[in-house]
Amino acid sequence: MSPEQRLLQLGIKLPAGNYAPAVHSGSFLFLSGKAPLPVNDVKPRGRLGKEYSAEEGYALARSACMDLLATVRNTLGSLDKVVRVLEVHGSLNTTPEFEDHAKVLDGASDLLLEVFGPAGLHARSVIGVASLRNGVPLTIRATIECEPQD
Amino acid sequence: MSPEQRLLQLGIKLPAGNYAPAVHSGSFLFLSGKAPLPVNDVKPRGRLGKEYSAEEGYALARSACMDLLATVRNTLGSLDKVVRVLEVHGSLNTTPEFEDHAKVLDGASDLLLEVFGPAGLHARSVIGVASLRNGVPLTIRATIECEPQD
Amino acid sequence: MSPEQRLLQLGIKLPAGNYAPAVHSGSFLFLSGKAPLPVNDVKPRGRLGKEYSAEEGYALARSACMDLLATVRNTLGSLDKVVRVLEVHGSLNTTPEFEDHAKVLDGASDLLLEVFGPAGLHARSVIGVASLRNGVPLTIRATIECEPQD
Repeated sequence: MSPEQRLLQLGIKLPAGNYAPAVHSGSFLFLSGKAPLPVNDVKPRGRLGKEYSAEEGYALARSACMDLLATVRNTLGSLDKVVRVLEVHGSLNTTPEFEDHAKVLDGASDLLLEVFGPAGLHARSVIGVASLRNGVPLTIRATIECEPQD
Repeated sequence: MSPEQRLLQLGIKLPAGNYAPAVHSGSFLFLSGKAPLPVNDVKPRGRLGKEYSAEEGYALARSACMDLLATVRNTLGSLDKVVRVLEVHGSLNTTPEFEDHAKVLDGASDLLLEVFGPAGLHARSVIGVASLRNGVPLTIRATIECEPQD
Repeated sequence: MSPEQRLLQLGIKLPAGNYAPAVHSGSFLFLSGKAPLPVNDVKPRGRLGKEYSAEEGYALARSACMDLLATVRNTLGSLDKVVRVLEVHGSLNTTPEFEDHAKVLDGASDLLLEVFGPAGLHARSVIGVASLRNGVPLTIRATIECEPQD
């Protein structure tokens, strides 16, 4: 009996969201937006330019990018199946006066280069937004080229 | 004589915009941003967290997603040519304090699952923006995998 | 000796960023966000609806799109290798009351149609953001279909 058949027989219904952390199509992997990881079980909240400096933002972007890479590994089985990073987009929860967007997103870009080398070199964009879900300070999403799916 | 030749002969010039509701390339369909449909001929205007609650936002996201699906059908001829939904991105016109972005975008995500089943499961992102064209409360865009064009 | 070997021998290390102006994958070109070009060596700064009118925004979007096209040419060698423009996304630095987003982004869309004809017709989206890097009034990014890489 297959695991899926066993679930059916046992009457177990796994929780299922209405969206996916990642979608794999051909040689492309499309990733959902990711927020920084919790610190001591607390999810970071606040604005760049108010609760967080640009330096702290750099660390937050690196943290969100680590969660992104965890999703890539969960989806593909291994980061070694990444051919190259194509696009990275950052949405920063900022005060209207904040201008150091590039410095913050560098936290994600630098990590991608450290992990993938030249294959981590990506196109990118970064904006300052009015609000984000649960008040998180930033979200990052990406599109990745990977080995084609069977 | 072909329809296009007839237009030329009749001196009729169809109105043409400077962008397309959708662009089909290979097995990808790229869709322009869509706002909620008019209610009693009036286009919804206002902000989430002020003029609209998160519950109302859910319905507005569902409505914008219906317009998105209408564009997919107009472009491909039938929704049956959709292989799977790849990405959905929501831009919500919010107050700075709004935090229920996920609940609002669920209006679009739930509709896609209802219509396409597992093929509707998509990667997504959602942000709160400072302003939108004509003061609409949200826009939604998507990238879709479809049967390759001839 | 190859140019790269010569650089090594000369001990010259070229400056290298942590992201790319464009990434070419198969028949897709992904472009980083671009701001309007400097005027008399001064980079435009300010908000639409405050320092800039929608008419001025149109010219600023056209200018950012020119920088985008320069990047396409630098990357592909020639604009003649563009098969079609797929997507254009505009992020406008606006006051909360601004509503003429479409008029502003037309500056980019019109230029693409002038340059590429029907192949310039693209899907698009435009949002008003809370802030942008260095206080620039807008950024524009795009995805382009081009002749496949060897």
